[in-house]
Amino acid sequence: MSVSEVKLVVVGSLGLDTIETAREQRFEILGGSASFACAAASFFAKTGMVGVVGDDFPVEHRALFERMQIDLHGLQQVPGKTFRWSGVYEVDMNTRHTRSTDLNVFADFSPALPDGYREAPYVFLANIHPALQSHVLDQMTKPRFVAADTMDLWINTARAELAALVKRVDLLLLNDSEARHYTGQHSLIRAAHAILEQGPRYVMVKKGEHGAMLFSREHIALMPAFPLSDVLDPTGAGDSFAGGFMGALAELDHASERAIRRAMAYGNIVASFGVEAFSLEGYQGLEREQIEARMALFREMTELHV
Amino acid sequence: MSVSEVKLVVVGSLGLDTIETAREQRFEILGGSASFACAAASFFAKTGMVGVVGDDFPVEHRALFERMQIDLHGLQQVPGKTFRWSGVYEVDMNTRHTRSTDLNVFADFSPALPDGYREAPYVFLANIHPALQSHVLDQMTKPRFVAADTMDLWINTARAELAALVKRVDLLLLNDSEARHYTGQHSLIRAAHAILEQGPRYVMVKKGEHGAMLFSREHIALMPAFPLSDVLDPTGAGDSFAGGFMGALAELDHASERAIRRAMAYGNIVASFGVEAFSLEGYQGLEREQIEARMALFREMTELHV
Repeated sequence: MSVSEVKLVVVGSLGLDTIETAREQRFEILGGSASFACAAASFFAKTGMVGVVGDDFPVEHRALFERMQIDLHGLQQVPGKTFRWSGVYEVDMNTRHTRSTDLNVFADFSPALPDGYREAPYVFLANIHPALQSHVLDQMTKPRFVAADTMDLWINTARAELAALVKRVDLLLLNDSEARHYTGQHSLIRAAHAILEQGPRYVMVKKGEHGAMLFSREHIALMPAFPLSDVLDPTGAGDSFAGGFMGALAELDHASERAIRRAMAYGNIVASFGVEAFSLEGYQGLEREQIEARMALFREMTELHV
Repeated sequence: MSVSEVKLVVVGSLGLDTIETAREQRFEILGGSASFACAAASFFAKTGMVGVVGDDFPVEHRALFERMQIDLHGLQQVPGKTFRWSGVYEVDMNTRHTRSTDLNVFADFSPALPDGYREAPYVFLANIHPALQSHVLDQMTKPRFVAADTMDLWINTARAELAALVKRVDLLLLNDSEARHYTGQHSLIRAAHAILEQGPRYVMVKKGEHGAMLFSREHIALMPAFPLSDVLDPTGAGDSFAGGFMGALAELDHASERAIRRAMAYGNIVASFGVEAFSLEGYQGLEREQIEARMALFREMTELHV
């Protein structure tokens, strides 16, 4: 496929993660927000990945992305070491402690979009410095729908840059504690409305195992997470959710509130497959029919019968 | 109305609560699991209250119950002081610290059902000692549907009595941490199935602001909580949820899984009115049409659009 067919551009990190859970330890497995988001999006729409890796990035990871039909024209490979992260999960799988973060080549990352990406209609700015997120937007011609993720680190250290970015996006994605932290409002309704006043048409609040909420000026959408008996590794769950969401939106190529809510459900379902395995293993060999079957189950689970 | 018209019997505590939140403090206001559960149930079905108060119980509280059409033939008034509880909520309204608990007349409570209650088809055993909950069941002729609530205290101190009760109920209600504690399973799916194996047809797991889940052997139902801008006092939310649920079930007089899921949504909606005020104030003057209007909004919020 050519670059010009890219419907969704995803900018984020690629890394090698060392992860310890109560059951299992894995050394330098493929991770990073762009990896999870692109993999999840790839089930729905042609996705282009923008990121950076070092010259130590294993060729099999690049081959995996290619098998998933992810366009890699925006993936820079530069001299040096790939970003590395190491963390440990408590038994409850909700509490995570970072052991080490080595930015390596990611420290000097400046996202540059290949020509074919600049005209892409959908953009997901995964969690990187808000100045870099804005820099990506500067390169886009006229995207139809832009979503950005953020985190506590940028709320604390780059608030002005984050505020400048927030004005320019259609949807801001963040987790519940971040929404509260960013706005100083405990009520998620009040927190979301404080963000909506800064410009975005939508705020999507991630609540991990408790699901997600979508806020617009007029409406609220509530979505529980798909329940799982066994979560093997929650790393990247939020990125997968966001990637699946944006992929499903790009597939429908329509950004109405109904379409956004539909896409949010797809993001939820795809991410549920992701956390049942380490790294991108849950996505390898996954077929669209399996996603649809789990979606049918989810529809049944969420029916109120009122 | 006569005792024989009672469709739902609720057994639980009545108390005078002293509550401090970040915004407000209230002294000896009407509380207790039976108060909240009966008030919430009263919007749907004729409810009989079984509990005990002391001779200091204010007449206006009894008058309030009567205005709500709650049958009080099972409410014992005995010499001594009414049960008192005092607690303080942290700013997030999720973390609560108990300052004092004075059982008073509740220490010697032995629930005795009036004749008309023994034939009632629906029973809610709110959170009291499991031996007392079983004692109530011993007095029932042949209830169509029995739900019981429990808590960590009984899991720790009366496990055998709790296990004996669990065998006899149709539905066990408990919160997520209690389900994990009772079964030693972190996954709520595994925890619920461990309880289902002990006898109940249903397990309902309360997750506070994150909603609730219903488990049967074959199915899972997921329900977010109705989102609120301002929670004034979460005391009794779980009891209101359970009372509204059992009231709605008794109203439909049908205990299929669909009916249970429908009733669960009503419990959720009614409880949302309860936590917007202290004590039972959120229920005073509340009309069924307001419940239905909020339910319509909730249906819209939870529609997946897939």
